Amino acid sequence: MQREPQSFDRVLSSMCSEPHPLAREAAERFLATNPGDPGTYPTVTALEEEALATLGEIAGLENPSGYIASGGTEANVQAVRIARNRAETRTPNVVMPESAHFSFQKAAGVLGVDLRIVPTDERFRADLEAVRASVDADTALVVGVAGSTEYGRVDPIPALGEIARDAGAMLHVDAAWGGFVLPFSGDEWHFGHAAVDTMAIDPHKMGQAAVPAGGLLARSDDLLDELAVDTPYLESTSQATLTGTRSGAGVASAVAAMDELWPDGYREQYRRSQENAEWLAAELEQRDYDVVEPTLPLVAAEISGSTFEALREEGWRISRTARDELRVVCMPHVTREMLASFLEDLDRLERGASVPVASDG
Amino acid sequence: MQREPQSFDRVLSSMCSEPHPLAREAAERFLATNPGDPGTYPTVTALEEEALATLGEIAGLENPSGYIASGGTEANVQAVRIARNRAETRTPNVVMPESAHFSFQKAAGVLGVDLRIVPTDERFRADLEAVRASVDADTALVVGVAGSTEYGRVDPIPALGEIARDAGAMLHVDAAWGGFVLPFSGDEWHFGHAAVDTMAIDPHKMGQAAVPAGGLLARSDDLLDELAVDTPYLESTSQATLTGTRSGAGVASAVAAMDELWPDGYREQYRRSQENAEWLAAELEQRDYDVVEPTLPLVAAEISGSTFEALREEGWRISRTARDELRVVCMPHVTREMLASFLEDLDRLERGASVPVASDG
Repeated sequence: MQREPQSFDRVLSSMCSEPHPLAREAAERFLATNPGDPGTYPTVTALEEEALATLGEIAGLENPSGYIASGGTEANVQAVRIARNRAETRTPNVVMPESAHFSFQKAAGVLGVDLRIVPTDERFRADLEAVRASVDADTALVVGVAGSTEYGRVDPIPALGEIARDAGAMLHVDAAWGGFVLPFSGDEWHFGHAAVDTMAIDPHKMGQAAVPAGGLLARSDDLLDELAVDTPYLESTSQATLTGTRSGAGVASAVAAMDELWPDGYREQYRRSQENAEWLAAELEQRDYDVVEPTLPLVAAEISGSTFEALREEGWRISRTARDELRVVCMPHVTREMLASFLEDLDRLERGASVPVASDG
Repeated sequence: MQREPQSFDRVLSSMCSEPHPLAREAAERFLATNPGDPGTYPTVTALEEEALATLGEIAGLENPSGYIASGGTEANVQAVRIARNRAETRTPNVVMPESAHFSFQKAAGVLGVDLRIVPTDERFRADLEAVRASVDADTALVVGVAGSTEYGRVDPIPALGEIARDAGAMLHVDAAWGGFVLPFSGDEWHFGHAAVDTMAIDPHKMGQAAVPAGGLLARSDDLLDELAVDTPYLESTSQATLTGTRSGAGVASAVAAMDELWPDGYREQYRRSQENAEWLAAELEQRDYDVVEPTLPLVAAEISGSTFEALREEGWRISRTARDELRVVCMPHVTREMLASFLEDLDRLERGASVPVASDG
């Protein structure tokens, strides 16, 4: 019996979305290619160069170094790996805010570095004093988040860059989710705004490319060289990626999405998503829920655990913050109609009613 | 201008192939899913369980633990990571034959373990005496290759299992490429034949699934638990994969390919590929080239560097062994006709003729 993938019509939890039609078409065409083997698959290797150039343009970096990774986790692990390999200490540490993604825990365990987690301020951004107090001569990397997973917050990247530079450490910016909305939000987040060394920026999140299309950017080739291993039996001579065989579908899909949408299509999507987030936040506040202001298209609000579970029973794909708040990510597939229908279910469940109410109710 | 992926009609170097039509169809249907987020994408998570069960059946392991990885490199890195995390020493080492894939170099660098590379014997298989001489109390892992990248050789896995057990080390088998032909070759290579702890076995190589569909198998859940990190904001509670977001396309594609082809379709493909390899080897020997006997569907032969380059000029995608031999991998897309046409070009180039010869020439 043939299984079908879930539809996206009740998915509010994912940081991935439905790929743009052109991105899907490109992914399907390049399904049988492997950019990990450039000698055999030259076309997709050329496409990866195009993808990298556009990512650099988006992130304020001329002549970017980097590659299309499996996702933000690989990009974050690789950034920690670069910093660890360059550090002159045998006991390197990484300083990051508690708002950073759990993939840094994975990176620390895999790479054997000490993770120093500092608190965030009342606006859920890295507490600069705490970061200053945590860096020392063994600090290899300072991590800044540009669009945090829980609240969509952007850390003060320029200030983090100064702290890192003063400590002789590198600065990595995790813009895996935020990278395709931040060009339009007025935030300071990229290589052009601060002393950023590496960045995670994922076409397969807000970039509307198909999975797997993450992005690792590095300020210069010598940083990427820290990752290179020799590659016998391939016509290429070295490989800097964490994986070996890679998906050409993701690469081709990223190029197709960015060619079509950068910059106007992404600007328009940012506007739609941000307006949806602000509308949902206002509706929830009207209902007296505690809401975390959506500075990017991501809404968090306090609802009871029982209501959360009941909404999941209704088929809504929702997730929680560490403080058990409801978390709704306003991805491209999330429409105003979806959010209205979600609110209807929420209202009905909170009233304990067993029948749906009319949409004007 | 729209780019097109290369066709496979001159690809002799790749260990990936054209996916089976059903595998391609499944990959396209599940392009917008992420098994890394089971709470949001339950269908593909169920499919991953099916894929794992079939991989276990192929590899002689009941109730297998593991997951669909990005490829053999991730599976090899994760196996080394499991062994490192379980080792009771602070200076763990990994003992492997020189025939092992370069991804173990990557793993050693990433994970900070000492790599002890031992020579192979005259049949290009791990030299057991050399392995015995290299293991010690700090040995966390012994690696055996079941279908080596250069010559398609299978190490004496049961003997390696005994050496590992006596040393208190784990045994990892890299069957990334070999796993879908070895069930029919009569070799002893899997969990049912030896004390194997972990294995790399890739549906996206001889398994005819779409990239990315690698496989990591572990004898028991407690081994996989060594990799688990907590996952906030996901409805799942922990994640053992090296990457975060993963391709549902690869997972669905692996299930579709294995449902269709295991075991009869794979047996038939093994027979075709092996016959092609033996035919090519015989043809090359007739022409007085030094040929490495293809014990699995992979042929290596000594040709001059200038001829190698000339063949690449003709559009043939070929690669070299470390000893600079020509390497031809008889994947499912490699037909007898392709090999005959390759030999025609080889003959013409060796004769130094500048015009193509008739196919009976």
